[in-house]
Amino acid sequence: MAASSSFSLSQALLSHSLPTHCSTQQHSDRLCLSGFNLSSISGTKPNKSTLRQISRAANPRRRVASRSTVKAAAVETLEKTDIAVVEKSINTIRFLAIDAVEKANSGHPGLPMGCAPMGHILYDEVMRYNPKNPYWFNRDRFVLSAGHGCMLQYALLHLAGYDSVLEEDLKSFRQWGSRTPGHPENFETPGIEVTTGPLGQGIANAVGLALAEKHLAARYNKPDNEIVDHYTYVILGDGCQMEGISNEACSLAAHWGLGKLIAFYDDNHISIDGDTEIAFTENVDKRFEGLGWHVIWVKNGNTGYDEIRAAIKEAKAVKDKPTLIKVTTTIGFGSPNKANSYSVHGSALGAKEVDATRKNLGWPYEPFHVPEDVKKHWSRHGSEGAALEAEWNAKFAEYEKKYKEEAAELKSLISGELPVGWETALPTYTPESPADATRNLSQQCLNALAKVLPGLLGGSADLASSNMTLLKMFGDFQKDTPEERNVRFGVREHGMGAICNGIALHCPGLIPYCATFFVFTDYMRAAIRISALCEAGVIYVMTHDSIGLGEDGPTHQPIEHLASFRAMPNILMLRPADGNETAGAYKVAILNRKRPSILALSRQKLSQLSGSSIEGVEKGGYIISDNSSGNKPDVILIGTGSELEIAAKAGDELRNGGKTVRVVSFVSWELFDEQTDAYKESVLPAAVTARVSIEAGSTFGWEKLVGSKGKAIGIDHFGASAPAGKIYKEFGITVEAVVEAAKAIC
Amino acid sequence: MAASSSFSLSQALLSHSLPTHCSTQQHSDRLCLSGFNLSSISGTKPNKSTLRQISRAANPRRRVASRSTVKAAAVETLEKTDIAVVEKSINTIRFLAIDAVEKANSGHPGLPMGCAPMGHILYDEVMRYNPKNPYWFNRDRFVLSAGHGCMLQYALLHLAGYDSVLEEDLKSFRQWGSRTPGHPENFETPGIEVTTGPLGQGIANAVGLALAEKHLAARYNKPDNEIVDHYTYVILGDGCQMEGISNEACSLAAHWGLGKLIAFYDDNHISIDGDTEIAFTENVDKRFEGLGWHVIWVKNGNTGYDEIRAAIKEAKAVKDKPTLIKVTTTIGFGSPNKANSYSVHGSALGAKEVDATRKNLGWPYEPFHVPEDVKKHWSRHGSEGAALEAEWNAKFAEYEKKYKEEAAELKSLISGELPVGWETALPTYTPESPADATRNLSQQCLNALAKVLPGLLGGSADLASSNMTLLKMFGDFQKDTPEERNVRFGVREHGMGAICNGIALHCPGLIPYCATFFVFTDYMRAAIRISALCEAGVIYVMTHDSIGLGEDGPTHQPIEHLASFRAMPNILMLRPADGNETAGAYKVAILNRKRPSILALSRQKLSQLSGSSIEGVEKGGYIISDNSSGNKPDVILIGTGSELEIAAKAGDELRNGGKTVRVVSFVSWELFDEQTDAYKESVLPAAVTARVSIEAGSTFGWEKLVGSKGKAIGIDHFGASAPAGKIYKEFGITVEAVVEAAKAIC
Repeated sequence: MAASSSFSLSQALLSHSLPTHCSTQQHSDRLCLSGFNLSSISGTKPNKSTLRQISRAANPRRRVASRSTVKAAAVETLEKTDIAVVEKSINTIRFLAIDAVEKANSGHPGLPMGCAPMGHILYDEVMRYNPKNPYWFNRDRFVLSAGHGCMLQYALLHLAGYDSVLEEDLKSFRQWGSRTPGHPENFETPGIEVTTGPLGQGIANAVGLALAEKHLAARYNKPDNEIVDHYTYVILGDGCQMEGISNEACSLAAHWGLGKLIAFYDDNHISIDGDTEIAFTENVDKRFEGLGWHVIWVKNGNTGYDEIRAAIKEAKAVKDKPTLIKVTTTIGFGSPNKANSYSVHGSALGAKEVDATRKNLGWPYEPFHVPEDVKKHWSRHGSEGAALEAEWNAKFAEYEKKYKEEAAELKSLISGELPVGWETALPTYTPESPADATRNLSQQCLNALAKVLPGLLGGSADLASSNMTLLKMFGDFQKDTPEERNVRFGVREHGMGAICNGIALHCPGLIPYCATFFVFTDYMRAAIRISALCEAGVIYVMTHDSIGLGEDGPTHQPIEHLASFRAMPNILMLRPADGNETAGAYKVAILNRKRPSILALSRQKLSQLSGSSIEGVEKGGYIISDNSSGNKPDVILIGTGSELEIAAKAGDELRNGGKTVRVVSFVSWELFDEQTDAYKESVLPAAVTARVSIEAGSTFGWEKLVGSKGKAIGIDHFGASAPAGKIYKEFGITVEAVVEAAKAIC
Repeated sequence: MAASSSFSLSQALLSHSLPTHCSTQQHSDRLCLSGFNLSSISGTKPNKSTLRQISRAANPRRRVASRSTVKAAAVETLEKTDIAVVEKSINTIRFLAIDAVEKANSGHPGLPMGCAPMGHILYDEVMRYNPKNPYWFNRDRFVLSAGHGCMLQYALLHLAGYDSVLEEDLKSFRQWGSRTPGHPENFETPGIEVTTGPLGQGIANAVGLALAEKHLAARYNKPDNEIVDHYTYVILGDGCQMEGISNEACSLAAHWGLGKLIAFYDDNHISIDGDTEIAFTENVDKRFEGLGWHVIWVKNGNTGYDEIRAAIKEAKAVKDKPTLIKVTTTIGFGSPNKANSYSVHGSALGAKEVDATRKNLGWPYEPFHVPEDVKKHWSRHGSEGAALEAEWNAKFAEYEKKYKEEAAELKSLISGELPVGWETALPTYTPESPADATRNLSQQCLNALAKVLPGLLGGSADLASSNMTLLKMFGDFQKDTPEERNVRFGVREHGMGAICNGIALHCPGLIPYCATFFVFTDYMRAAIRISALCEAGVIYVMTHDSIGLGEDGPTHQPIEHLASFRAMPNILMLRPADGNETAGAYKVAILNRKRPSILALSRQKLSQLSGSSIEGVEKGGYIISDNSSGNKPDVILIGTGSELEIAAKAGDELRNGGKTVRVVSFVSWELFDEQTDAYKESVLPAAVTARVSIEAGSTFGWEKLVGSKGKAIGIDHFGASAPAGKIYKEFGITVEAVVEAAKAIC
């Protein structure tokens, strides 16, 4: 696998450090992510003595030959840490947040001020990471689910020595082009794992990260070499707790026994509208115990550092359950007049209160100043992080020697490199192949791909047998069988989407898919949007994609959904029409690791069409049949998905009547938009204004393709409960309607 | 109020019995809903002796002079009920479900078979309703949150004597045009309170219904006359429990102390993918205790009728908490080979298994047969229901005599009739009025309307001070202050939307509004879609509607949201540009009681524009300025919301350069679509193809308005974190861009 690699670490880092979600940059060839320094593994043998030197520089008192020693050393360091430096460091975090928000005159100082102690302990004492390679594979993951408090994380990344958050970045907080946007964005700031801000997403992402770790550990760890081994930490607030998505994801986290997921609940009793008493009086501890979590309460999160440390220790000791550490804090701790009030949540303190807070906390420094002793204290993370990574690289080299095949596979997951020729596994079909529902054809693709793509895993929100998403050669990913690849999400669409975002962002080679009925994308739209924004190449397998589902009726029949996703940036909305197109849709989805894909698939059987192809799908829109010449048909019929067959039949009928007819499949608007003007003109010549489209969904947006002289056949009202054929007929989604519309304009 | 009423009960029933969500039928004048027989109240004095006769016919052994007597009688009846008839009735329910699903060869027999006992006890022994007036105001509400089991409810409505579900309706289950669609739909089937099927929605709707009852009871009940007094019952399944929305809504239900909400949790351990063990192993009881519910476990839901009865009695005795009755049942009870398996969940049993089930349960009857003794047993509900309503009408007459003002107000809430001249309360503005954010102007409207509309109540998902939704003259709706009208939803958008659907469907005069940032409609889209489908006129107050929110960045900046709602059927997407347009948007939203409205409002200040008007908004698109003649301007500039000001300024600049320019505000595409062709031509003449639109959102769909020769200025990628002005400039949402585009085409 390594032999076919053509990318270096520096390229990998470059690809990470640039925001790439703008449409012009979204190309499927940008797969060069790396979780570790490949050169140190695949090229020369790592030099153990060099490694030792690095680690000694980091901490001369300890050896780093084995992981467990490092862990012990970390605890040792922690115990010896001067309390004064800890307090100073915590106040540094607080004031970096205060100062940045003040300079921007925008932002959320309250959470960083309250959570600085747990933040400090995590990043300075507990977490294992390498600030100089934020993508080191085996790093502990940290997610700030309460993303509005991002200055906490920026301050921590700054102190820890990440190049992504320099002093100038703190000073340009929330400004145009900065690496410190208003909420944490993984695509802007190396060191940020996921994109948070919309509440509840982060804790669900963290569940996905922890799932990925447990899954990969189960698949690749050996009794003598636990090559995958990290924790996932998360801070969530009252807002995250109130959101339903967090309950969904946390129910699953306990069900799956994600013991290495440790969540800090910032219990500060304040949300934007005031005291949580006005809307949030449930017993969170009891709810989490009901969900199956281990729950610890740190009563003094403001200054009880040892309480926090002890809680983390206890959490790590509980291996079969995730742990919720409820940390009671004071929002805006240190601000004499605004602490413990909503006024410190989401706006700058104001010069006067900043002064008062400086006085109150005994902070004589200028804005953005990091005291020398704090700087010095944190400086060790550079060398320690390098040592941790080097140690792990050495461990990987050992692993590679002993477990060649597994190492190659794991490496491909870490790098995101796809096996050469993987796409040949995709099935192809001829017009003689039996008619089938695209949901079934999708299952054929999934099962074919799972054999060649070690990172493909996923499942459905309790509709596996309807969505046809089971991988037949694998069992269920469960607490005691985490090596398996069928994930059972239960009826939790929103949590499912966000968990898949976490899986996708764990390492580039993991390719999560998830499934439900297309209409229920409404339940998970916030997570899907974040897939698109944060460049998580999740594959959304959405079946029952129209009135074609029949009797379940309008609550289950999507109408506006295709249009609603075509309007969303950085996502591919694919609606294949038959077997070849379904295979093509999967090819596109697999290649697009930095944007999600939604596959809209039929419940009902569809014919295998003449002229359909994988290559066609890659162009978004293409001609499946044409009896005209000179790029000037009398009429162009455009269909998608289950209605392409209708367009094809109407084409035949019109041709029988003497017309020249082009039939175009429009499987993905986004892909077509990315083609050259010449190609577009070759498919939809400007001179041919007689165009009819047919799609069993909203006509909203179709004017772009059919023009003011064309006709869009679709459904601009809700569906109905009846057998599918009857609804198609009653709603006029028929061959006759296409023929009639075409005759009227050509 | 009654004097101004021009509608009768028969009209009211007619309006209910027709599906009205098709766009051609959605007119604001269709407000004629009635919750009680107005003629018996507002006209002649009710004749007590007649009432007594009706009630005696129903049950000669008891008097109905007071409500409590009826209740006691009901219990008495229940105690005397022959167990054999109960069992036969329960099996009737089971077989009506089996037979209907079998005939349709589609549907979900499992739940009705398992829940028939609790269904029977609720509809036959516990609930207070009048089958001949499904809209009687003081009826107990029942919600089948597990909507796929709708045959349970259809069977119950049929037995209870509702005209909406006759034998022929059961026989046309899931067929075109039937009143028994695949999931319960309030707009199709009188007797169905809300539209369910998408899981978790129903329990949240039920929370809204119970909130409405508690609120109205607090406002209108008197120590001597508790005129508002009913329970809300709901059946939810494992699927509902897994969905995050149910946790959100149930957390609020306990917070609000909704003691008259009684939820049956059908604990059958089976979901579509198999045993709930594969994805749902949390302790639901403990979670609900954590949420603050009273929890009861009925261990034998299959035959433990007295257990179920006792649980309901206990639930009613707990007045300060909602109650969850966990009823352990066997899905598909009675089917010898399919019970307790997923195979009975969602498909017909098949002829062989139907036979086996008939044998197993000793059911010798033909399909759809209701045995005579069962028929006779249920027949009393017609007269009893009439008596209940008549008794309540008498009570209302007493109430009206003593509390004239309150009675008039309550009557208007029950009928949905708006006070004459209410719209004059809306504020108006001149170009000289100070610039302001439309979110602030929205608050002025809300506060003005709350004074004249007794049914207006609502709130925000923890963003009241950002969404500007507080009604200043009212306090918070809370457990101990349920008469107040500011609802604090916490950070629970999805639950909020579905709760508002419940409030809206409780009685036509309640007008719920709810608020969050526009981008977070993604969290609640499933609830919004159901507002549209089920004709709930909820007002969605969605602020921070574009990149204009600035520093919070792309996670918070809507891009595709306007397009995504323009594509959704039966919803009004309104984006007002200034004070007059905001007032106009509220006028439209209040008048549209059968379709929801979304108001997209700015965070940033906007000028009051010359030419804007309430009347203009009502037409959806209208001219705000024009220096052309003969309906032939050189160019048409189209703007919405915050960008209308940009279009207006560009218009001025182009006019200074000698062009004739029309500036059009396009506040609602849906309303414009409903205008006459002549009006449309007067605003957007076909001959003028030089058109430029500007909107700080996706251009998807704008081709319809600007045509292939025009230009749509918008944003087709994600936003950015920076001050708003900077983002507008960098993204080219500027006067200069409009002027340049216009010059290029005219």
